[in-house]
Amino acid sequence: MQRHFVQELEALKLRLIKMGSLAEEAIAGAIKALLEHRGDIAERVMAQDPQINSLEVEIDDAVVDLLALQQPVAADLRFIVAALKINTAVERIGDHAVNIAESARQYAHGTEIPMHPDIPRMAEIAKKMLRNVIDGFIHKEPSLCRAVLANDDEIDDLNKKILKDLVVMIRQNPAVLDQALELMRVSRNLERVADLATNIAEDVIFMAEAHVVKHHHDQKS
Amino acid sequence: MQRHFVQELEALKLRLIKMGSLAEEAIAGAIKALLEHRGDIAERVMAQDPQINSLEVEIDDAVVDLLALQQPVAADLRFIVAALKINTAVERIGDHAVNIAESARQYAHGTEIPMHPDIPRMAEIAKKMLRNVIDGFIHKEPSLCRAVLANDDEIDDLNKKILKDLVVMIRQNPAVLDQALELMRVSRNLERVADLATNIAEDVIFMAEAHVVKHHHDQKS
Repeated sequence: MQRHFVQELEALKLRLIKMGSLAEEAIAGAIKALLEHRGDIAERVMAQDPQINSLEVEIDDAVVDLLALQQPVAADLRFIVAALKINTAVERIGDHAVNIAESARQYAHGTEIPMHPDIPRMAEIAKKMLRNVIDGFIHKEPSLCRAVLANDDEIDDLNKKILKDLVVMIRQNPAVLDQALELMRVSRNLERVADLATNIAEDVIFMAEAHVVKHHHDQKS
Repeated sequence: MQRHFVQELEALKLRLIKMGSLAEEAIAGAIKALLEHRGDIAERVMAQDPQINSLEVEIDDAVVDLLALQQPVAADLRFIVAALKINTAVERIGDHAVNIAESARQYAHGTEIPMHPDIPRMAEIAKKMLRNVIDGFIHKEPSLCRAVLANDDEIDDLNKKILKDLVVMIRQNPAVLDQALELMRVSRNLERVADLATNIAEDVIFMAEAHVVKHHHDQKS
């Protein structure tokens, strides 16, 4: 039984790692589609989202089975509860990647405004945050996650700046409206990705330290 | 032990009902602030969000304790796992109420455009969805939740229509830009509230029927 339990936990961890990688690829793909005007990559990101959704359902089921059949306690229980919460957050990151991909497809149709330079920067930070929380989870390394909590403020500031700059651009030239609205949507979705990465960081720290760090940061949109 | 367990489950349920009511009030308050240009109500919604955040942490802790100490199985386990997921969703609904309240405060400063008539309509549907999923959860009544799944498409259509109309309004008169952007933000946040209510509906149905209904609907922003 005990050996079986260890294997089940390991299988759960591998599935979450796979899901995290898929979400990371989806965000990277959506951003590449946006920056390189690649509608084809945007389509691919959208087409792959059902795979993330299926994994979410599989992981939820595996968690319920583990809780029911193994009745874990202490660190194992915290790991499993964290897995359930991280699972929900990663699935939502996949949804935000789809939103960004949709905007990338729309943005690629226009030629009115250049890319806002802070969007690629914001995307890099968000991707790094996601990578760090997944690594932090895999290696049970809360220090990687603490760095993520600090990144979140930087992302919030970039998002505010981008939205403000785009409003100025629309005022100066209303013809850029459609494209500027898509870039605003991208910025807000990246901000939400960073926010979800922050939630995951909190869950990993909870798992590793049995210490609640929630609500140091609140969700913005 | 068994009697204690029943009491603990009841206490968890009461806390979730309280949290659901607070989130419902927050959404209602934010919408009232928006429609009646009441910055004071918007401030109150923002000031009350920490209460929802604290309840989220309390509920998570209670769930971990219940799982560790009582090792529930079958229907009780499904209830507790659903509680954990619903908890996260309700906390996010509170965050969206804060976003709407922020927009209400900004919108109240301008006089450029009238309210889009579909926003109050969308708000009514979103509030009804939230009420139905909370009732569905309390009374373990999945039929209330099935209706919510149908509402979600209506909300998506309203959101698309509102965003499109507002773009037309900005084109006709760029002076409305700031207020129109706030209304877009409100519309998107209401759409997310409906989406989270849909997630809760799926969790309640899962709890009641041990049947996964996820990903019939996907998240939009």
